[in-house]
Amino acid sequence: MYQSTLNWSLAILDKTIPDVIVGRLPRYLGTLEQMEREGINKTSSQELGERLNISAAQIRKDLSQFGEFGKQGTGYSVPFLVERLRSILKVDRMWEMVLVGAGDLGHAIARYQGFTDCGFTIAMIFDNDPAKVGVNIGGFRVEDVANLVSKVKSRTIQVAMITVPASSAQAVADCLVQAGVRAILNYAPTVLNVPSGIRVQYIDPVIHLQRMTYYLD
Amino acid sequence: MYQSTLNWSLAILDKTIPDVIVGRLPRYLGTLEQMEREGINKTSSQELGERLNISAAQIRKDLSQFGEFGKQGTGYSVPFLVERLRSILKVDRMWEMVLVGAGDLGHAIARYQGFTDCGFTIAMIFDNDPAKVGVNIGGFRVEDVANLVSKVKSRTIQVAMITVPASSAQAVADCLVQAGVRAILNYAPTVLNVPSGIRVQYIDPVIHLQRMTYYLD
Repeated sequence: MYQSTLNWSLAILDKTIPDVIVGRLPRYLGTLEQMEREGINKTSSQELGERLNISAAQIRKDLSQFGEFGKQGTGYSVPFLVERLRSILKVDRMWEMVLVGAGDLGHAIARYQGFTDCGFTIAMIFDNDPAKVGVNIGGFRVEDVANLVSKVKSRTIQVAMITVPASSAQAVADCLVQAGVRAILNYAPTVLNVPSGIRVQYIDPVIHLQRMTYYLD
Repeated sequence: MYQSTLNWSLAILDKTIPDVIVGRLPRYLGTLEQMEREGINKTSSQELGERLNISAAQIRKDLSQFGEFGKQGTGYSVPFLVERLRSILKVDRMWEMVLVGAGDLGHAIARYQGFTDCGFTIAMIFDNDPAKVGVNIGGFRVEDVANLVSKVKSRTIQVAMITVPASSAQAVADCLVQAGVRAILNYAPTVLNVPSGIRVQYIDPVIHLQRMTYYLD
């Protein structure tokens, strides 16, 4: 028993999971957490799939990459799967984030209450506008971006969000990388150049809107 | 010549393009528009690929689904490709949008200047909070969500953005669908149930952040 568990763990450790699968896990987690809030204790790949518009087979295949989460026919334990997914995605801990850009969108994000339950908390906000530096947003004093590298480095923050105009985003990203940030969520509508090993995700409403108009008449 | 063009057009009409390819086209368009602003007239799948972190082969394959955009070895004409992609994505016209939710995020979106150049313009903003109804945001008077169905229907608006709390998002989506909306960009962190034929895209920063922490230590 011990031996087979060990082999199984090693097999998992040995395997590189495709990023497209990793990308679906947060959606599974979010839906399972929603089920937990609704008091649902057991679920199936069918039920999950219906909520997510993803096929049950795809969900089973994705989850099987990370081990055995349920027995054939008995379904998944919601709390167990939530716990495992939080651990796999490393959000069973709290990640401090730095937010760069205290404009309209930065304000909205700084005041957003939905991060802390999901493993994230904003630790610092920066801007380059003298009119904004020193202002209090969502409980944070906006700091001068000139101090970004030293301040972020001193707190070993690895996650950042960029909400500056597109024209400034690359310069901000360069500073963040210099400060040790390894994961950037970029709201500026521009592609960032970062060294390999640094992750970037993009949020641009236009990209999503244009993907839908393709199907309209 | 006429015959071969006709056959070629029919072949394209006949073919259902996978949504994953459609999803990459807005990114190609955005980067090509950026090149245009930089005064670049000719590009290659290699150059596009480097800017987008997508392989040149993937870009050539994606574009070839829609016809022939460049000759082997001579590269692509940037203005031609921009024009074709705008036409394919149907953003060579202006889409009126309705925004539901006049909170922090709704404010930021209403004031965002980046939509009009990309084929979109906000036409109406709704909220259910009496304190917000009648207030002016980004040049719009916030209207009572109770009037949403009739007002949106009367203007035959097909595109909407939802920036209400998760608990209200489904009810808002139901109203939007009833009003004739066929494409919804949902910022509320919840999965929407909509009839088939209605497109939904999601923007949730937590999903993107959790996809990156997987790779951190």
